[in-house]
Amino acid sequence: MISEDDLIARFFAPMAGQGGLGLRDDAALLAIKPDEELVVTTDALAAGVHFFADDPPDSIARKALRVNLSDLAAKGANPAGFLLSLALPTDWQQDWLTKFADALSEDARRFACPLLGGDTIRSPGDLFISITALGTVPCGKMVPRTGARAGDRIFVSGTIGDAAAGLMLRRAEWDKPLDARARDFLIDRYLHPQPRLALAQLLRAHASAAMDISDGLVGDLTKMLRVSGASARIELPRVPFSEAARAILAANPDVLERLLTGGDDYEILCTVAPGAVESFEREAGAAAIGGTQIGEVSDGDGPPAFHDAKGRPVSFRRGSFSHF
Amino acid sequence: MISEDDLIARFFAPMAGQGGLGLRDDAALLAIKPDEELVVTTDALAAGVHFFADDPPDSIARKALRVNLSDLAAKGANPAGFLLSLALPTDWQQDWLTKFADALSEDARRFACPLLGGDTIRSPGDLFISITALGTVPCGKMVPRTGARAGDRIFVSGTIGDAAAGLMLRRAEWDKPLDARARDFLIDRYLHPQPRLALAQLLRAHASAAMDISDGLVGDLTKMLRVSGASARIELPRVPFSEAARAILAANPDVLERLLTGGDDYEILCTVAPGAVESFEREAGAAAIGGTQIGEVSDGDGPPAFHDAKGRPVSFRRGSFSHF
Repeated sequence: MISEDDLIARFFAPMAGQGGLGLRDDAALLAIKPDEELVVTTDALAAGVHFFADDPPDSIARKALRVNLSDLAAKGANPAGFLLSLALPTDWQQDWLTKFADALSEDARRFACPLLGGDTIRSPGDLFISITALGTVPCGKMVPRTGARAGDRIFVSGTIGDAAAGLMLRRAEWDKPLDARARDFLIDRYLHPQPRLALAQLLRAHASAAMDISDGLVGDLTKMLRVSGASARIELPRVPFSEAARAILAANPDVLERLLTGGDDYEILCTVAPGAVESFEREAGAAAIGGTQIGEVSDGDGPPAFHDAKGRPVSFRRGSFSHF
Repeated sequence: MISEDDLIARFFAPMAGQGGLGLRDDAALLAIKPDEELVVTTDALAAGVHFFADDPPDSIARKALRVNLSDLAAKGANPAGFLLSLALPTDWQQDWLTKFADALSEDARRFACPLLGGDTIRSPGDLFISITALGTVPCGKMVPRTGARAGDRIFVSGTIGDAAAGLMLRRAEWDKPLDARARDFLIDRYLHPQPRLALAQLLRAHASAAMDISDGLVGDLTKMLRVSGASARIELPRVPFSEAARAILAANPDVLERLLTGGDDYEILCTVAPGAVESFEREAGAAAIGGTQIGEVSDGDGPPAFHDAKGRPVSFRRGSFSHF
């Protein structure tokens, strides 16, 4: 038996930032500079939906924070802090929570995003986590999802589909040979998203629209174009895949659809006006994450058109991951 | 079958504030005035813990938002908006969600606290709600939990223990006569907390410390004194009870402990320096919620001492509600 106060003091107070007031108050306090605006986002994760209940507790903690930081990065925001709601199953173990809190604390430091507050309750069912992340942008500089315009070039960061392949491996839905290194890489990509905060400043400077890819490239691009009132043409051969994902595709080309619609990428999808492309590409290259041009925004309001190496249209049965 | 986007557009977009960007972006955007600071709080609620799964959906929605607004009020903050994480059980009904969203929308308007964003996921288990509320205070004016000093007078708003009695009735743990009006009043107090936002300005002006009472007067006062490094003497006959709670106490005086430790009051507990008492009492009276002086902060760091009408010390077996 441990009191709620002891639980907070022991597991969470160590990662509290200044605004968290030692987690001894009812609320956190944050000063925003006069030339900045606040960007706020929230993402919830449930066992059996966003992670496996028996995933390592440190991986669950990192994913819960990072999917939120990924949203901040896509908006061009710098992290300022986060709030954690945690519903612990009745049979929670102190060892589990120690590992969860240690990893969360480490990520909070790594990404300069201290804990500001939270609420820990007993869950009558499974583990449930909700994180609200706060960030700041210079006034008027948040990168919207709605700004894609005909002629803009479409970029993605990193590589696409690794997490979807990792989930496939995690679920033992892959029965072909795959070397251990590729397997580990893909599962790691599923378990540990990398928020592209290094691109935040770059997106503010050059992107007309941006979002992070959480529900798959196809579905998320479709969403971005819909709210922007535009369409697009995507050259599938340009979509960047990791060496490990290419090994999967070589063994079974049908997996392509899964890599493009499976989700959990947490890469940046953005559009850049023609005049800014050169600067964007140069600076993204310097950021070591890379930005790959995969197509172009076009007039119209239909879904994006995907083309293969021979220019033939490719369609996908399943748009994107959806909970409902 | 309804897509996540349709679900957002249909149920939640109508209550989105300007900063919510129509809920079509990954994040919300909020400008904070240069002379203001941000106050942030989060509270999670689970079926079977904070409400009954078969409570009316509109009551669940109101409680989820109001317990957060109650925290803002206690800090002297004015609401700026909220984010909602909602895990819906797999068998959720559109009718249920319509009622939930309508009530939430109505409260968002009533308390001038628009929806800024959120995340709706499928829950493998029960309903789970986490709300993060954002508010603002003039710089340096947030009322801390840590500011109680010896000599300060201790006040509570409204009446104490109504929700604890309401929960007792809701659980059919009361077998004595009680008139229908008193029963309805107490159950309503359990289902529908009233965030004391009307006192926010007053607390900023006059209170040395404040918090909202969510886990019972005894336990929450003990927490406030512990973080303030002080103790207190409370005169139990001064604790304000509603007519309905007094009817319960008249029938069974042993319920007193339950009313003082049961929680869910969502009244304000605050301390006021002697020189500010007169102004505080006058202005709290004008706010029609009332502030009742129940005791005085003292030196020392022990738990508060409670005294009955004859000056005899009274102790409580159970400090406060705790999840763990």
